[in-house]
Amino acid sequence: MRQSDLDELRGRVNELNIKVLDLINERTTVVQEIGKVKEKQGVNRYDPIREREMLNSLKENNNGPLSNGVLEQIFKGIFMSGLEIQEDEQRNALLV
Amino acid sequence: MRQSDLDELRGRVNELNIKVLDLINERTTVVQEIGKVKEKQGVNRYDPIREREMLNSLKENNNGPLSNGVLEQIFKGIFMSGLEIQEDEQRNALLV
Repeated sequence: MRQSDLDELRGRVNELNIKVLDLINERTTVVQEIGKVKEKQGVNRYDPIREREMLNSLKENNNGPLSNGVLEQIFKGIFMSGLEIQEDEQRNALLV
Repeated sequence: MRQSDLDELRGRVNELNIKVLDLINERTTVVQEIGKVKEKQGVNRYDPIREREMLNSLKENNNGPLSNGVLEQIFKGIFMSGLEIQEDEQRNALLV
């Protein structure tokens, strides 16, 4: 394999990075909407049971090569990000 | 907003979860190919400069609502996963 092939593979990784980022941003937007509904309902936004269900569903749909352990690590980070953004918004709302 | 709307939003999150997972798996496959090339070339697979370049590019392409700080956290986890899988493969190869 030549350097040009390596460059092509790297180009594909760059494209996939951006696609993953766009989807995580889309996901975060939907999670923000859910957060607003829950806030109106006076329900706690952090829902460990729902989180566990999502992880189980992801593991069932995991075709690899990612191991389920690494999958769990990555998605816990993604789940956390939705909550962090909601907390920031709430903090900012309190400061206004 | 009614419960059915909340269910719909959750359904969208579930779909996005699977899409993100599939893309991360696709990305990991390409990273594995890159790892094999680098191994043949006798080059170290972990490349902090390339990692930094990828993060900078992602931040430039980040349309939010994800903050760049959270973006960096999530993607460092994703980058790490590629390396972990390669190390596992190498370890398994040594055990054979």
